[in-house]
Amino acid sequence: MTLTVSGAVLDGATVGLRCADGAIEAIGPEVAPQAGDETIDAAGMPLVPALVNGHAHAAMTLFRGYGGDLPLMRWLAERIWPVEAKLEDEDVYWGTRLACAEMIRTGTSRFWDMYWRPEATARAVEDAGLRAHIGGPLFDADGRTEETKARVLGELEALAERGPAIEPSLAPHSIYMASEGLLRWAGETAAERGLAFHIHLSETEQEVSDCLAAHGERPATYLDRLGVLGERTVLAHGVWLDEAELETIAARGATVVANPVANMKLAVGGVMPYPAARRARVAVGLGTDGAGSNDSLDLLADLKLFALSQRHAAGDPTVVPSAEALEIATGARAPLLAGGAGRLEPGAPADFLLLRGDGPELGLGELASDLVYAASGSVVDTTVVAGRTLMRGGAVEGVEEIVARAAERADRLGIR
Amino acid sequence: MTLTVSGAVLDGATVGLRCADGAIEAIGPEVAPQAGDETIDAAGMPLVPALVNGHAHAAMTLFRGYGGDLPLMRWLAERIWPVEAKLEDEDVYWGTRLACAEMIRTGTSRFWDMYWRPEATARAVEDAGLRAHIGGPLFDADGRTEETKARVLGELEALAERGPAIEPSLAPHSIYMASEGLLRWAGETAAERGLAFHIHLSETEQEVSDCLAAHGERPATYLDRLGVLGERTVLAHGVWLDEAELETIAARGATVVANPVANMKLAVGGVMPYPAARRARVAVGLGTDGAGSNDSLDLLADLKLFALSQRHAAGDPTVVPSAEALEIATGARAPLLAGGAGRLEPGAPADFLLLRGDGPELGLGELASDLVYAASGSVVDTTVVAGRTLMRGGAVEGVEEIVARAAERADRLGIR
Repeated sequence: MTLTVSGAVLDGATVGLRCADGAIEAIGPEVAPQAGDETIDAAGMPLVPALVNGHAHAAMTLFRGYGGDLPLMRWLAERIWPVEAKLEDEDVYWGTRLACAEMIRTGTSRFWDMYWRPEATARAVEDAGLRAHIGGPLFDADGRTEETKARVLGELEALAERGPAIEPSLAPHSIYMASEGLLRWAGETAAERGLAFHIHLSETEQEVSDCLAAHGERPATYLDRLGVLGERTVLAHGVWLDEAELETIAARGATVVANPVANMKLAVGGVMPYPAARRARVAVGLGTDGAGSNDSLDLLADLKLFALSQRHAAGDPTVVPSAEALEIATGARAPLLAGGAGRLEPGAPADFLLLRGDGPELGLGELASDLVYAASGSVVDTTVVAGRTLMRGGAVEGVEEIVARAAERADRLGIR
Repeated sequence: MTLTVSGAVLDGATVGLRCADGAIEAIGPEVAPQAGDETIDAAGMPLVPALVNGHAHAAMTLFRGYGGDLPLMRWLAERIWPVEAKLEDEDVYWGTRLACAEMIRTGTSRFWDMYWRPEATARAVEDAGLRAHIGGPLFDADGRTEETKARVLGELEALAERGPAIEPSLAPHSIYMASEGLLRWAGETAAERGLAFHIHLSETEQEVSDCLAAHGERPATYLDRLGVLGERTVLAHGVWLDEAELETIAARGATVVANPVANMKLAVGGVMPYPAARRARVAVGLGTDGAGSNDSLDLLADLKLFALSQRHAAGDPTVVPSAEALEIATGARAPLLAGGAGRLEPGAPADFLLLRGDGPELGLGELASDLVYAASGSVVDTTVVAGRTLMRGGAVEGVEEIVARAAERADRLGIR
């Protein structure tokens, strides 16, 4: 299938873009449709890479607004854990479809997920036409180390059989929910199979002080000693990383994913130290986290909050230039996260957005500044992933059906 | 003109709502259209009061994204002041029309404005069908006290001739830009004419320390001594108000408008102390501020940031329940701001929204929680102000023309 976009605006110039086999074949002023191409007339529409959500629990979108005002531990204990005990594949499937509909509408092409029943997540992602890096949560704080390993090995097998849009990963929950042995096993398993290692790290101050008490070292230093900090490691949150940890992370080539909305919603008391991460040249991405610590998957809205919270924390309004912030949301500053996307050039995945250039948000100003500070996901008109047009005109086809099916699952679970 | 909405969902029940002469005539399960009514079939759509933006500089939307990464003083000195020196009525008119289009799309019915050429702002507001409280900025830090008074008296005359959607106000810029004499004059003029007094107060720590140095008292105490703190006083920002000031503000019946995005974007270092304001029973509203310190007029997006920043500042995720946050955005907790709106009851202004109940953001969860944490203005399907339908189906009619005309004005000013 070949798709050609004409008349789009890239960095102020009018360009065409031709995709074949899911990748960008050509891009430039001279690129025009050829006979038989599917075509999109994008006259005057800004063209940008699609967004990459570096940390999510997509299926939990099903639980959105269910006890949303409760503090985290009460929300988990009183609402979520009882529901999760009843979870079936179809709940995860429709929760993820709901999440995917919102991601397509707001311009996300790819996300990093950690949740139960990852095969159901994978099936939903494929049916929606997105891409995802998926791992079932690994933990053994309950003492069931071998059981969790066996479950995850089975999940990895099942995920490996999915199509090219799905990449399995090892997803130990955290250093406080997974033992040293399990973390090492996850790291070794990831290395043997060439898979990513995705973990929550340094989200709360408590986690840091507990780690210091238990291991005499800070969380990232601990992970490094276990040998699991490498080029395929994704660290979600990183709020309390210090400069030495950031140096180590940069030296190992690991990626840190900021989740500013989640951190503020749970009132963890800090924000990911982006200025220090940048000085250390750490690869940085942006994530939404899941319902409960964030209730939206609109990554442009979270990008605004990322920039605002960094300005606020630094007491310096110049701390994150808009163009740089935008690169954080597209994965251009975290090659692992974006899987080669994040830049519009021949050979890159054909994952891109066409924006409404005639609306009030983007009509007049500098594009990067407007995308960060004036826009939300509602400026996305067209979402193309792997050369397939998943949305045109700002409305995801079939969304009412997805909401209705998700509502049936929520009813079954007794949460609405 | 009579408008009847049927099938809408209010607090979980299906209701009809009938408007006549710009006000709500009846609301309840039994209300049905009568012959000759304009009708809206709102089957299954959540019905909420329209939003009230308590502090804005709407026309500055024309400057959005023009030097958006510069720190405030460089942005003003290098970009805005040179442009403002060339400003004509039509620039203010089209900048405000652009702002009104965004407000209608994102569910704001009424805003409090402070900007040059307020008659042009008023004309734009009337043409757009919104409501506004408008004052031209009053200051005499340049020594031109009599000139500013004369200008503002002329503006008040002109504004008084506009229709019922426009309420003139006195809008001294701040305690550091307006002298004690000018502040007193503004307070007396407002009192004589029954108008509101709208001022930036306690936005930065510098303002507080300068006020202490100059007057030996904090900003709100200073205003109180001048006799300008009363039931028709609107204080924008209030980041550095202390408990004693909040007690005074509450005792005088004045309103504080939080502008969380602006405060974070300018990195003022704090957030409006909402928990203390609530304890003191201060009337509180929400504002966007203008382009440069915020680039969006999507008040639901700002509401999320308000709640998140309060959780973050307090280190407590329970500090602002969602239903309460929503009341802050509708003006229900600040009667002056909302002008009697903010509640859906007979006699109240017919200013309300119908939301997309079948989209992924609002389909499943608790409405207030979802509106605060999951939604943005894109969930607004229908905006009704004074019984007139300004938007149906999520798209503002004629917006392309407004953007095009605003772009012409921006070109004339040399800012794009």
